Amino acid sequence: MTVDSADCLFCKIARGEIPADVVAQRDGLLAFNDIHPQAPHHVLVIPTEHVPTVNDLAERHAELVGRMVLLARDVAAERGFAEDGYRLVLNNGRHGGQSVYHLHLHLLGGRYLTWPPG
Amino acid sequence: MTVDSADCLFCKIARGEIPADVVAQRDGLLAFNDIHPQAPHHVLVIPTEHVPTVNDLAERHAELVGRMVLLARDVAAERGFAEDGYRLVLNNGRHGGQSVYHLHLHLLGGRYLTWPPG
Repeated sequence: MTVDSADCLFCKIARGEIPADVVAQRDGLLAFNDIHPQAPHHVLVIPTEHVPTVNDLAERHAELVGRMVLLARDVAAERGFAEDGYRLVLNNGRHGGQSVYHLHLHLLGGRYLTWPPG
Repeated sequence: MTVDSADCLFCKIARGEIPADVVAQRDGLLAFNDIHPQAPHHVLVIPTEHVPTVNDLAERHAELVGRMVLLARDVAAERGFAEDGYRLVLNNGRHGGQSVYHLHLHLLGGRYLTWPPG
């Protein structure tokens, strides 16, 4: 399922070749609205570097992944729903339901998220 | 909802005051089986440091949070379901369905996870 950066949808968004509804951008990260929102707020946070899945992360990526979480949290705060709460989701591979093979963190908020998470 | 470390369930587990089915332990992190599993594999990864929610994370925690993700990934690999896939979930606050106010990452695998994630 893995594609090269040249053909990767999210790399194309990161390079500005495909438009996206960008929410935030900082330090090698980009946040934009999901085109198929599953909640009143549904934002994706990606690294601009092409990493296909969580399985492909190296130890050197630890801080980058943590900063993805912090950026999602900051977007929730800026939009005013951080205190009400939200769910952060990373899908890996087939069982996880990963649809684009470029690492992305889902931020969902604005409604109660039920359990189990899928 | 926030409790002090002295009364925190996951701090008590980290201190060994309450037993847990520990799966892995390294670098200030602990992984143990969820007592209410929602999938064939359902593991929680926590920092031993008491951080109540994602909202409470400081910039200095970025690497720690990233290492939580890497530990979850390594547990999936050790158990042999990393290639089939899995879902990683961080619940924050009321809308996220956070039940214990000590930061914890859910690793769910061994079955297809549906969409939306709750």
